[in-house]
Amino acid sequence: MARIAVVAGDGIGPEVVAEARKVIDAALPGVEATEYDLGAARYHRTGEVLPDSVLTELAGHDAVLLGAVGDPTVPPGVLERGLLLKLRFAFDQYVNLRPSRLWPGVTSPLATVKSGEVDLVVVREGTEGLYAGAGGALHRGTPAEIATEESLNTRHGVERVVRDAFARARRRERRKVTLVHKTNVLTHAGSLWARTFEAVAAEHPDVTTEYQHVDAAAMFLVTQPQRYDVVVTDNLFGDILTDIAAAVTGGIGLAASGSINPDGTYPSMFEPVHGSAPDIAGRGVADPVAAVLSGALLLDQLGHADAAARITTAVSAELASRGPGVALGTAEVGDRIAAQVAA
Amino acid sequence: MARIAVVAGDGIGPEVVAEARKVIDAALPGVEATEYDLGAARYHRTGEVLPDSVLTELAGHDAVLLGAVGDPTVPPGVLERGLLLKLRFAFDQYVNLRPSRLWPGVTSPLATVKSGEVDLVVVREGTEGLYAGAGGALHRGTPAEIATEESLNTRHGVERVVRDAFARARRRERRKVTLVHKTNVLTHAGSLWARTFEAVAAEHPDVTTEYQHVDAAAMFLVTQPQRYDVVVTDNLFGDILTDIAAAVTGGIGLAASGSINPDGTYPSMFEPVHGSAPDIAGRGVADPVAAVLSGALLLDQLGHADAAARITTAVSAELASRGPGVALGTAEVGDRIAAQVAA
Ligand SMILES: CC(C)[C@H](C(=O)O)[C@@H](O)C(=O)O
Ligand SMILES: CC(C)[C@H](C(=O)O)[C@@H](O)C(=O)O
Repeated sequence: MARIAVVAGDGIGPEVVAEARKVIDAALPGVEATEYDLGAARYHRTGEVLPDSVLTELAGHDAVLLGAVGDPTVPPGVLERGLLLKLRFAFDQYVNLRPSRLWPGVTSPLATVKSGEVDLVVVREGTEGLYAGAGGALHRGTPAEIATEESLNTRHGVERVVRDAFARARRRERRKVTLVHKTNVLTHAGSLWARTFEAVAAEHPDVTTEYQHVDAAAMFLVTQPQRYDVVVTDNLFGDILTDIAAAVTGGIGLAASGSINPDGTYPSMFEPVHGSAPDIAGRGVADPVAAVLSGALLLDQLGHADAAARITTAVSAELASRGPGVALGTAEVGDRIAAQVAA
Repeated sequence: MARIAVVAGDGIGPEVVAEARKVIDAALPGVEATEYDLGAARYHRTGEVLPDSVLTELAGHDAVLLGAVGDPTVPPGVLERGLLLKLRFAFDQYVNLRPSRLWPGVTSPLATVKSGEVDLVVVREGTEGLYAGAGGALHRGTPAEIATEESLNTRHGVERVVRDAFARARRRERRKVTLVHKTNVLTHAGSLWARTFEAVAAEHPDVTTEYQHVDAAAMFLVTQPQRYDVVVTDNLFGDILTDIAAAVTGGIGLAASGSINPDGTYPSMFEPVHGSAPDIAGRGVADPVAAVLSGALLLDQLGHADAAARITTAVSAELASRGPGVALGTAEVGDRIAAQVAA
């Protein structure tokens, strides 16, 4: 049976993770979970972000389920670089998977987009690009200061994520992959991405392909999100585009994500896209749907496609049955979805 | 009297530029214009992108009005790096100005956003960041290929554009500046931007400030574009965010831009955000509003604020009077706006 590590984290993290676990239990009884205390609270208490011993223990699990980490008093970058990105890189989670669906019952902020019309998945590269941490500063704090950030891209890293995108497209109805980059300005990295994409596309004649510059894609996600099926892009572009995709499909409150090591060498990690939302923490009002859907991605990745599908079906039914403007409590939503899953 | 250089360019460029000139003439008779033949057509004919002699001649003008350059047969980067970005860098156009207004009569794709509610301006840095052209590749075309792109940021470059943003905010009603970056991941450049922003903010106690990560800003531009007044950000983030802002205010068909050298050492350049749209070129159906509004930005920059205001007022009236779904010809729109301006 699967053994997962749970990092509930800060703010609403523990609240939404509790519901995700409830639903996972209903879908696949017997998953063993071990809790790890990481995040802003631990950092404030002990100064530790991710001790090596904890990293080693996490590596011994089949997957990691994370709620949310952070609070406004932690300096920018500490938990991001020290915990979230550290795990993505240490566990070689090169596929950052972010599905966006406009679920029945959910209203898009876009006037002309109807439920069911948007169903896309962004395959965001997770281990390279501007997230590599390459860069520095000289003459810091003086008028002569310069600061650099370097985007590192390898054929190895690009090809494996592009292959994953094509493999996912083949399992979907429309079988279409859109490459997003900025080849007209970032000519070196852009050329590597474009050539690699073309080479992989040639091996997949049954998959339709297109290319868009990132600025155009950002625009089309607003004007025609229906046009996308699978989108593959680099780490930073993926960060931005997935928040737009979440916004047009009802908000990050519903957006799930997986940081996946498809090779299975290391555990994959699953987390809602939303943050720790300290303003509403502890009140039992956070929507756990994003965490629950992240749990479905987790089960799917561990080979339990049926259990995962039961969760997404239950979420779909739950969202469809919510009247507009009805606000349910965190636990109530979890209970309802778990009941549907068990039924 | 002002002397401007006109680069009509390719596709619909000449059509929309003709209307922009018509309207400029109506607002400020006597502007002298010299045409320069640059773009895809010249590149195909002669192999030239921007001869040094032309660059020198352009530098002798008060401003440049550009239609659109490019066609799908020119390799990515040739005209972008060789012409558009070459001019932005050679003429030190460090303020890339992109206003977005939801004009009366224009429908936003966002269900809840009404005309008049969105009025923001993005001050995009224009001479640094990932657009610097720093980067390269090794082992190109082999499995060992690596490609890099480097974002270069200087205190000098960041401070001057941040100052420009605060100066603009002071001239606006809401007096608010939002800094957008990704300080939690791009820690070196992010820190430089954040510290510079704070220092300049301290000199402007009458201006409200906020900071947002680029992914959050991309989302809020979709869910609450009303919240923004002046947004200041780096070159690449600005590229992406301005296309989202354009999308939520009626599309890039209405979006104007200025690449401005505020010091006046070199000419500033004004152009619609849209491209050359070869699919509709030559048919007289392109909407010239973005080019006309770019003409207004041009006159404003040259010190003719009244003439510029007459143009924006006329555009506003023109858009308000268009029935939904009414398609007017390019020249007809130009004629109507020019007539309003002259009235
Ligand atoms: C918190 C941050 C490091 C992270 C990212 O930029 O990847 C977040 O925005 C996300 O999208 O998961
Ligand atoms: C054509 C391209 C170089 C340019 C940019 O990326 O700046 C365009 O997208 C723009 O926004 O003006």
